[in-house]
Amino acid sequence: MQTSIATVCLSGTLEEKLRAAARAGFDGVEIFEQDLVVSPDSPEAIAKLAADLGISLDLYQPFRDLEGVDEAQFQKNLKRAETKFQLMARLGIDTILLCSNVGTATIADDGVVVEQLRRLGDLADRHRVNIAYEALAWGRFVSEYDHAWDLVKAADHPRIGTCLDSFHILSRNTDLGRIAEIPGDKIFFLQLADAPALTMDVLSWSRHHRVFPGEGAWDLSDFLTRIAATGYAGPVSLEVFNDSFRQGDTDRTAVDGLRSLRWLEASIADASAAPAESAAQGPGLDLQPLPKVEEPRGINYVELSTDDLGALTRQMHQLGFQFIGYHRSKPHVQLWLRGKARIIVSEVTEEAGTTSAPVNGTFLRGIGFEVADSKSAMERAALLHAEEVPRDQTHNDEVLRGVFAPDGSEVFFHQFNETTPAWIKEFGHDHDEQISHIDHVNLAQPSNHYDEAVLFYTSLLALHAQSSQDVPSPSGLVRSQVMSSTDGSVRMPLNVSPQPNAEAVAGRGISSEAESYPEHVAVACEDIFHAAATALSRGLDFLPVPQNYYEDLDSRFDLDPEFLQRLQAHHVLYDRDEHGEFLHFYTSTIGSVFFEMIERRGDYFGFGAPDAPVRLAAQHRKNAHVNAQQSV
Amino acid sequence: MQTSIATVCLSGTLEEKLRAAARAGFDGVEIFEQDLVVSPDSPEAIAKLAADLGISLDLYQPFRDLEGVDEAQFQKNLKRAETKFQLMARLGIDTILLCSNVGTATIADDGVVVEQLRRLGDLADRHRVNIAYEALAWGRFVSEYDHAWDLVKAADHPRIGTCLDSFHILSRNTDLGRIAEIPGDKIFFLQLADAPALTMDVLSWSRHHRVFPGEGAWDLSDFLTRIAATGYAGPVSLEVFNDSFRQGDTDRTAVDGLRSLRWLEASIADASAAPAESAAQGPGLDLQPLPKVEEPRGINYVELSTDDLGALTRQMHQLGFQFIGYHRSKPHVQLWLRGKARIIVSEVTEEAGTTSAPVNGTFLRGIGFEVADSKSAMERAALLHAEEVPRDQTHNDEVLRGVFAPDGSEVFFHQFNETTPAWIKEFGHDHDEQISHIDHVNLAQPSNHYDEAVLFYTSLLALHAQSSQDVPSPSGLVRSQVMSSTDGSVRMPLNVSPQPNAEAVAGRGISSEAESYPEHVAVACEDIFHAAATALSRGLDFLPVPQNYYEDLDSRFDLDPEFLQRLQAHHVLYDRDEHGEFLHFYTSTIGSVFFEMIERRGDYFGFGAPDAPVRLAAQHRKNAHVNAQQSV
Repeated sequence: MQTSIATVCLSGTLEEKLRAAARAGFDGVEIFEQDLVVSPDSPEAIAKLAADLGISLDLYQPFRDLEGVDEAQFQKNLKRAETKFQLMARLGIDTILLCSNVGTATIADDGVVVEQLRRLGDLADRHRVNIAYEALAWGRFVSEYDHAWDLVKAADHPRIGTCLDSFHILSRNTDLGRIAEIPGDKIFFLQLADAPALTMDVLSWSRHHRVFPGEGAWDLSDFLTRIAATGYAGPVSLEVFNDSFRQGDTDRTAVDGLRSLRWLEASIADASAAPAESAAQGPGLDLQPLPKVEEPRGINYVELSTDDLGALTRQMHQLGFQFIGYHRSKPHVQLWLRGKARIIVSEVTEEAGTTSAPVNGTFLRGIGFEVADSKSAMERAALLHAEEVPRDQTHNDEVLRGVFAPDGSEVFFHQFNETTPAWIKEFGHDHDEQISHIDHVNLAQPSNHYDEAVLFYTSLLALHAQSSQDVPSPSGLVRSQVMSSTDGSVRMPLNVSPQPNAEAVAGRGISSEAESYPEHVAVACEDIFHAAATALSRGLDFLPVPQNYYEDLDSRFDLDPEFLQRLQAHHVLYDRDEHGEFLHFYTSTIGSVFFEMIERRGDYFGFGAPDAPVRLAAQHRKNAHVNAQQSV
Repeated sequence: MQTSIATVCLSGTLEEKLRAAARAGFDGVEIFEQDLVVSPDSPEAIAKLAADLGISLDLYQPFRDLEGVDEAQFQKNLKRAETKFQLMARLGIDTILLCSNVGTATIADDGVVVEQLRRLGDLADRHRVNIAYEALAWGRFVSEYDHAWDLVKAADHPRIGTCLDSFHILSRNTDLGRIAEIPGDKIFFLQLADAPALTMDVLSWSRHHRVFPGEGAWDLSDFLTRIAATGYAGPVSLEVFNDSFRQGDTDRTAVDGLRSLRWLEASIADASAAPAESAAQGPGLDLQPLPKVEEPRGINYVELSTDDLGALTRQMHQLGFQFIGYHRSKPHVQLWLRGKARIIVSEVTEEAGTTSAPVNGTFLRGIGFEVADSKSAMERAALLHAEEVPRDQTHNDEVLRGVFAPDGSEVFFHQFNETTPAWIKEFGHDHDEQISHIDHVNLAQPSNHYDEAVLFYTSLLALHAQSSQDVPSPSGLVRSQVMSSTDGSVRMPLNVSPQPNAEAVAGRGISSEAESYPEHVAVACEDIFHAAATALSRGLDFLPVPQNYYEDLDSRFDLDPEFLQRLQAHHVLYDRDEHGEFLHFYTSTIGSVFFEMIERRGDYFGFGAPDAPVRLAAQHRKNAHVNAQQSV
């Protein structure tokens, strides 16, 4: 599949955008006019740069407000078009996007539009360029793709085709049935964007909230499958206007975009043994599959990095974790177990530093996921442009391979096995005792790239995005997006803090700023009161829960006084829904990590959302207190 | 007028919120339940804190989903209500907000709701609390204020009244006529919020985008006038859910909020000689006026602070400014004139530092506005809680007084006078030569407080907010909000950069980060080509304009080739609309300031918006170039 991206998706100068698109691995780009207008590079220089980078210039866009106007205006518009055709020749671009008239159309007569398209086609033919006519969702008289197609069909000109843009079509909820009527060779261009399900005016939605396929609410597999069935063989191009992408890191956004296309392509390639595609004319999209991935079966381990081994291991002991041993070939790496909840603790010392960047503090370094086929998962990840974690492997150790997630944490793929994982033996241990496991891991996300994480976990690990929530904290709303497997064996709430600390988190060298939005590991146990009692007896520094919380709880749930008293005595928070109950407590934070101990009763599937503001407020107070003490 | 604010408007802990509300000068607060639930302070401690701070606790809120349910559910709801009434007694709050049922209502029968309200009233009476029933805009069966009032009227219970919230009423565009039917003493509470004109689902609009009165699109003067006419004598309270306020500085948001109420109060007090209010029963709102202010007549001067006097004054000379002299009593302060465009240049040296904070670089320090009554303007500003600029006054100098704007720049009020301003004589100068003036000043705004600036300039200087625009730059969208006087004699585009640099700008100690979003002074001249030729001959470092821009210009406007050539030769950018033409050029940036020289032809009223991306891209490239050189 030939991939392309509109330069407007990316931040930076035109040159920076082209270089980033090429580095990411796109086959081509669409040149967004304004990017060229503000560039100091001549069209010839841009064409040369693209050629040197090995990417094609697939489209010049947009050309606006041409058709449905009176003759005098149309003459002016033709003249304006001609200057663009000349410019395109200098760029070496043969197709231009023509958007349906939004601003100047006065004649709501298809006959006039058809005639004007045809005359534009004649002019275009003299310049050997093609016109891809697109219905903007807010076009004045032409706003539906099938209307645009009817006009193109009636114009019946070899230089006039249509451009299909998933945003303009799906945002209007138009019936997709008529796509099948369009011959693939009359689709002159294809633009893809996904979008979150928002209820707002379509122009603002389009200009600010588009995302890459897989990051929104739409079924782009179905959309692209329909296009593929027409025999369309041109570029599949991303056109995404997104406020965050526009200010994010250029290379990173480009990789995110290409990943979305590779994932989408593979999802269709998997289904393309179906007869629909074989019926199509021409070469078609040439869809490449990826090694398949199934949903992970669980979290095998979490790795924490620390320069405060004493505090961290004391807390783990208080929570009932058992020290198992040191890694046989890595003397600074310990294993702690609580049943199937496995925590690897890497002590960061001057000598032990295996990474090039200096990292300090206590932070979540990585997660091991149990997958059906770890080799295939890693191959797939690499083909989805994830960056591999450099890892020292000692002879005889199990070969673990992993990639970096968008938040800088390491994702490792473990072969799922009903028995104790093989690597555990490297710590001299081979059996579990307590009934306990890692229920979920809560990760802080960089602020300008939060959609990237959704696609990352969707495409690499087949996790599903749940609906996102805003959680109030004393310093603003925290956006929380849960990614989970269907059966809940893997759950990860991804949190975007209101205070941007993107760089701090992305590098996993957590700054003090990020400490107010710590990450955590939630460990499921069989008996929360027993776990809390043990922790109390071992002197755990619980995160304090206000008396007001328990009074409100009583008002909300009308609890048995003895039970309420028991909750409070154990610092345990409580939630309930129609499926079950959720009991949990939090530890204080070390570095940027804390623990949550939880007990799920019945089929409660959530995370105690009403309790999250209580936690955030307590952490805010503690943080303010620490800062005040430090400044004394 | 009794002022109040809901704690949910502010960031921080409940204690921080109460302290900030008291410091700002509010009479009371509404306690938002969640703020109490997450607080470690008991209700009694909160009541005592409020008493110590001298503020009242006016409302407990919200109570949800009570009415329109079956009897079994209603019994549970009454029990839940009773726990809140008991809590209110501990807080010393006598009124609770009851929101119309959103979640659990199943009975769309006004008779049932009336009966349930009455029974709630009986329970409330036993606890001596009042119920303020409010129609949420998205209520299931009750969503209009007049419907809620009909229900309250039918319940006919002394403990049951209504709460009017401007958001829920104005967002639905409901006819306001029936407000006049409600006796003031049956309005148990009044909440105000303004909002920008957005087309989106009302719940998201309400939860994320409310702003303080004067910062949005609604006519709250009319709304409050209607309330005043009912004889309502209770608190006028702000309930504003705003993502930025929730993460902004608590004290600052509180002051912003109180300013909005003072401004609104005065705007109504001015009109209250009208017979409408005198007809009302009871004490009413007791509206206090403010010293009046008229729109400013012009920008008297701009003051720049610099530690690079050579570069700055060289650039001003290149632009045709003339050095006039030093201030007679401030040897580090120079005056430069170009006709009526007056720039005061304060050199920052080790010795000269008159401010306590160390400031470096070249930055815009302040603006002098010409007003009809400078004394009255200053008094009004102080009553609107603007912070006065400490200023050394030497005996015999004109007494200049000013305040800090939200972005940290200084706003000075000058008595308007047709002749040369008095203070000019302090520099030994008394006449102007060139025909030139300051056309506009473009200021960078802190990111979490952009709405504050709109209210600041509206309330202190009677400027008007124009519609805001998003300007694409290589590092994201810049939100641009123009504040201007009706005749355009004062125009200020306020720009919020996509990269948050709030603190840097607010303190006017501009960091290197802020330099990519510099501020500028635009100077109007009679002949842009003459000005550009002079500047060229004097070696001005123009901001470069790409060749591509001129080619696009030609395509857009079909310009005379000679004119186009002339534009390009002089680095002049061009825009045109149906009213006139706009010709302008930019200088390079010194510190965080650059200049724009402009010529307006005809009645062109804008700022060359299509050219702004060209400028931002050129500045981005220059900045990247400088950074690259520095890191070599």
